[in-house]
Amino acid sequence: MNKTDIAERLRQLQLHICEALEKLDGNAKFHEDAWLREEGGGGHTRTLADGNILEKAGVAFSAVHGPVTQAMKKQLGHEGNSFFATGVSIVLHPKHPRHPIMHMNVRYFELDDHTYWFGGGIDLTPHYVDMAKAKQFHLALKTLSDKYDASFYPKFKAWADDYFFLPHRGESRGVGGIFFDQLNESCGLSKEQLFNYCTDLGELFAVVYAQQVEGEILDTASKAELDWQALRRGRYVEFNLLHDRGTKFGIYSGGRTESILMSMPPMANWLYNHVPIESSEEHITLSFLRAFHDFC
Amino acid sequence: MNKTDIAERLRQLQLHICEALEKLDGNAKFHEDAWLREEGGGGHTRTLADGNILEKAGVAFSAVHGPVTQAMKKQLGHEGNSFFATGVSIVLHPKHPRHPIMHMNVRYFELDDHTYWFGGGIDLTPHYVDMAKAKQFHLALKTLSDKYDASFYPKFKAWADDYFFLPHRGESRGVGGIFFDQLNESCGLSKEQLFNYCTDLGELFAVVYAQQVEGEILDTASKAELDWQALRRGRYVEFNLLHDRGTKFGIYSGGRTESILMSMPPMANWLYNHVPIESSEEHITLSFLRAFHDFC
Repeated sequence: MNKTDIAERLRQLQLHICEALEKLDGNAKFHEDAWLREEGGGGHTRTLADGNILEKAGVAFSAVHGPVTQAMKKQLGHEGNSFFATGVSIVLHPKHPRHPIMHMNVRYFELDDHTYWFGGGIDLTPHYVDMAKAKQFHLALKTLSDKYDASFYPKFKAWADDYFFLPHRGESRGVGGIFFDQLNESCGLSKEQLFNYCTDLGELFAVVYAQQVEGEILDTASKAELDWQALRRGRYVEFNLLHDRGTKFGIYSGGRTESILMSMPPMANWLYNHVPIESSEEHITLSFLRAFHDFC
Repeated sequence: MNKTDIAERLRQLQLHICEALEKLDGNAKFHEDAWLREEGGGGHTRTLADGNILEKAGVAFSAVHGPVTQAMKKQLGHEGNSFFATGVSIVLHPKHPRHPIMHMNVRYFELDDHTYWFGGGIDLTPHYVDMAKAKQFHLALKTLSDKYDASFYPKFKAWADDYFFLPHRGESRGVGGIFFDQLNESCGLSKEQLFNYCTDLGELFAVVYAQQVEGEILDTASKAELDWQALRRGRYVEFNLLHDRGTKFGIYSGGRTESILMSMPPMANWLYNHVPIESSEEHITLSFLRAFHDFC
C-alpha cells in the first residue's frame, strides 16, 4: 500500500461522501474546483450551497508534496527533506439551527525516509445540545473504533475533548468526538488496518449525519433559534481561526486560502457579552459545553 | 507625567469619544461594563448596539499591571519584572454598507525599569472604497501628525500598510491609516509631546468618522450591498483573529475575552471562492485593496 494507492482511495472516499450527502440533502449538488500547488500536487475542493438541509458544505481532497519547510519541521517535531500528504476534510453547516454542524478529517503523511502516520478526527457541534443524539454519535464512533482496537475510542475521545476546546471561552466547541494524530505501526496495527480505520470513519460520516438530521422535517426556525445559531457559528469561527492547527498552519504556510476557509460558516454573529436567559435551551446548551461529559 | 496621569487622561478620552459618537449616532447610547483583572488593574468596556448609524461599536479603556510573563517577554523583546499598560481601543461597525468600519487604538506601556513607549493606530475599512473619502481621512492624519514631526505620517502610513494586510488574501484590510509602536523620547519628542500626539489622535477619531458618514442620509441598502458588507466583515474577522497582534496576544495570554472580541462585527459571511462581477463596484473595491496607494 503506497502513497499513490492511499491518495486514490481517499479521492474515491471524497466522491462517495459527496454522493451520500447530495442524496441526503435532496436538492443541492456539489461543485468541484480542481487546483494545483506550485510546489507540487494539488486538490479537488467540492462545495455545496443553499441545500434543503445543508446551507454550506465543503468536502476537500488534496494530495500535495514538496520539500519540508522550517515551519513544518517546527510543527512536526520531525526531520526530513521532502514530504507527501493527502487527506479528506469535511465541514457541514446546516440551514436549520436544530441540525448540528459536523466536521471530519482523515489524513496520511509520509516523509522521504518512509516515516509515515495517519491522523484524523470527527466532531459534532450542535447549536442546541441533544443528549440522545450526542450519545448516538459517540456510540457509532466507539463501535467502529472497537473493531480495530479497544483502546482507540477512549484515547481518541479524550484527545478530542482536549483539542476541540476554546480556552478563551472555557467552552467545548460541541459534544466532541474523536481526534488522533501520528498513528502508525507502533500502535500494533498494520498500515493497511490503520488506513481501513480512516476510510471506515470516512464512510461512517454521511451515515452518522443522516442519523443526526432524521426525524421531524424542519422547515421554519424561530428568530431566537436563528440568532443563537449565528452566535454559535461565531464560536466556530473563533475555534478555527484561533486554535485549529490545520487551519492556522495552512494559512500561515501559504496554503490555498479558499480550500482552507471553506470551513467558515455562513452568517456568523458576535454580540458583546451575550448571556442566555437562565433555564432557556440556549443556557442549558452553554452549561453543557462548559462541563465534561462521557457518552458511552 | 506619570502612569496614573496618563491612565486618567485616557479614561477621560474614552468618555469624550463615546459622547461624540452618541451625538453623531443620534439614537443609541453606550453601556459600560467595569471589570477587574485578577493579576492587577482592570478596565471599563463601553459598547453600543443597534444605533441609527452604528450597528455595533466598542470603546474600551483598560489600565492593567502585573509581573512580566514569558509570553510578554517574547512579544516585547524586552526584559523587566513588572509592567503597566493602559490604552483606549475603538472599533465601529456601521449599519449601512456605504459607511466604513473604523478602528483606533492608543496605548502606553511602562516597565519597572522606567522604560516606556507609546503605540497606536487608526485605520479605515470601507466596504466600498470611496477615493475622495480615503484621501480626506489620510489628509486629516497627515495634518495632525505633521504638527508633531514631519516624518511621522510617511513612516506610520507605511507601517499601517504593512500591518493591516492579509497575506493569505493578498489584500489590505481597508484604505490603511497610521500605525506606530515603541515610540519614546529617542524619536526627539518629549513624553508629554508623544502623549499629546496620542490624545490628539483620539480626539480626531469622532471628527473624522463624522466626515466619513456625512452627506446623504442612508436609510435603505440593497441586498447586493448588504451581502458584500457581510463578506467584508468576514475579512475583518480573519484579520483580527489570524493577524492582529493585540487580539492574538490578548486571547492567548488569558485577557478578558469579551473586551478583546468587542471588535468582532455583527453578521459576517463567508462564501466559497466568491469573485465579484467584472467592473462592479465590489470588483473595483477588491482591485483597489490589492494594490498600493498613496493618498496625500
